Amino acid sequence: MTNRSDPSGEDSLIARYFKPLATDPGAFGLVDDAAVLKAAGDDIVVTTDAIVEGVHFLPDDPPETVARKALRVNLSDLAAKGAKPAGFVLTLALRRADDAWLSAFAHGLGEDVRGFDCPLLGGDTVSTPGPLTISITAFGRVPAGQMVPRTGARPGDCVMVTGTIGDAAIGLDILTGGPAASALANDAAASEMLIGRYHVPQPRNALAEAVRAHASAAMDVSDGLAGDLTKLCAASNVSARIDILRIPISAAARSVLAQRAVDIEAMISGGDDYEILCTVPEARCAALAEAASQARITLTPIGSVIAGSDAPRFLDGEGRELPLARRSYSHF
Amino acid sequence: MTNRSDPSGEDSLIARYFKPLATDPGAFGLVDDAAVLKAAGDDIVVTTDAIVEGVHFLPDDPPETVARKALRVNLSDLAAKGAKPAGFVLTLALRRADDAWLSAFAHGLGEDVRGFDCPLLGGDTVSTPGPLTISITAFGRVPAGQMVPRTGARPGDCVMVTGTIGDAAIGLDILTGGPAASALANDAAASEMLIGRYHVPQPRNALAEAVRAHASAAMDVSDGLAGDLTKLCAASNVSARIDILRIPISAAARSVLAQRAVDIEAMISGGDDYEILCTVPEARCAALAEAASQARITLTPIGSVIAGSDAPRFLDGEGRELPLARRSYSHF
Repeated sequence: MTNRSDPSGEDSLIARYFKPLATDPGAFGLVDDAAVLKAAGDDIVVTTDAIVEGVHFLPDDPPETVARKALRVNLSDLAAKGAKPAGFVLTLALRRADDAWLSAFAHGLGEDVRGFDCPLLGGDTVSTPGPLTISITAFGRVPAGQMVPRTGARPGDCVMVTGTIGDAAIGLDILTGGPAASALANDAAASEMLIGRYHVPQPRNALAEAVRAHASAAMDVSDGLAGDLTKLCAASNVSARIDILRIPISAAARSVLAQRAVDIEAMISGGDDYEILCTVPEARCAALAEAASQARITLTPIGSVIAGSDAPRFLDGEGRELPLARRSYSHF
Repeated sequence: MTNRSDPSGEDSLIARYFKPLATDPGAFGLVDDAAVLKAAGDDIVVTTDAIVEGVHFLPDDPPETVARKALRVNLSDLAAKGAKPAGFVLTLALRRADDAWLSAFAHGLGEDVRGFDCPLLGGDTVSTPGPLTISITAFGRVPAGQMVPRTGARPGDCVMVTGTIGDAAIGLDILTGGPAASALANDAAASEMLIGRYHVPQPRNALAEAVRAHASAAMDVSDGLAGDLTKLCAASNVSARIDILRIPISAAARSVLAQRAVDIEAMISGGDDYEILCTVPEARCAALAEAASQARITLTPIGSVIAGSDAPRFLDGEGRELPLARRSYSHF
């Protein structure tokens, strides 16, 4: 952590809560201005994502889950790029140094630091009169030249996605008292699962190496499947056809969908899925599916890459195209 | 930049203003989620610093200088660590996408990207209801194992500092209508110089290689010379004696000091100097001084490292210790 205060302020706060997470020798126990990342012949993959109170998480969200979400949205990027986590730096903009909040935040963060083997390397703690803002830059390693790009999708490739889509968007709807809350009023387990998917994403780092070995292009689904696939296709100069019925939906989400409390458009254009979306050459699909099965991660083929520059089309059981007014979450 | 919106929102904003700054091949023209940093046998030095509107810069500060300050506070860390800039990622938390502001911000940032040869590698743009917050994580390269630490100061080393100390603290005092504003009411040039030192720090990257070759420990002075030296000494398990009369003070600051509009305590415990503070073994001082002279950077010996665990002492012309109520800026 950059030292931005006297020992009674930020430094003691850092020592108390964050030093135990800085287990990498390159972090120098957080006493230096800077950290050292050794590449050892690999490429360093760099990704950065910030989350803002009231925008990406709710003011009442538990500090443990806020910490985990802040780190996991970055781990999810590393997973999609085929990179093994190497560490991260953390910038916390806080209204005040609240011991109870920070202690819980550091506890949640610490569990993920250990669980994903991704040590804290450094950071900065600043005061803000505004909403709590957490910015993380995470690092991963890939063998030189082997980061999985967004640009490699080719016509004929299979489009695949991990996990299930739309859960987190429904979880947020429940938390904010939307129609899904009423639909699941008598199903606490389903509500809890969907809210959990919003609070604590499950980045698919266990599949990173296989994605690197087999995918032609990949990204994580953070702003909605429809919009993110549109971006991937644009970057690769291709289009795609997606079979809506094959998009993986959890049982809980299916129940909300059946009650028409949400529609499929909202589920595929909502954010916060943090699943891997990838394109895979036909000859590689079986190998990637096998790797996913071994990692106990659901991996579902949902369509195909086709030639063209149109936005990807989402087709229902009768081959009719789903009209999509908006494809993803937009900040502006 | 992580894509967090549809093409009409954040993506087009990114393309318009920031893509021209992403000249490194590892940035992939900002179309990917992640960037690639090639280490090529070097260590990657990582540093991160955030600046918040109303805390680190003023709401009326020109966007060009805000951009430069955000990058330069990080470049200053790299310089003190002996690292050559390799690139940075940028997180912008904005209330709204204001074209005029962003255009000016990107213009100022672009000038420094070119001037310091430090390309934009990626980032994230998010909305916030709070103050504008800019978080940068910057990367530098040093030969393996050669980052200049905070921990290497030894008794007998000379304590040296680049540039002049206290200008930015006075600049902020002028901008906020403090006593220095009246003291310099008739000296526009001095006011402008001091305000400029607050708005646009001058990181000493030109001296980085020599600091790496000769300094035993170094850090940048960002929160006040007194507090930062205290941290360096604590990290190195040493103490120091500083001769206050040798601390380099600009002519403009000296004039404010002479009028008693500020005192020396405020100047050495104020922030935003962004000079290099280093300790140098006696046998290396001449070589570092020569390198500084060639780089046209003022480098001043201000005291000595001594054994002990006391906080460094600042002594006046009669050897009396300056009492320091606070040694640096504290956020909390």
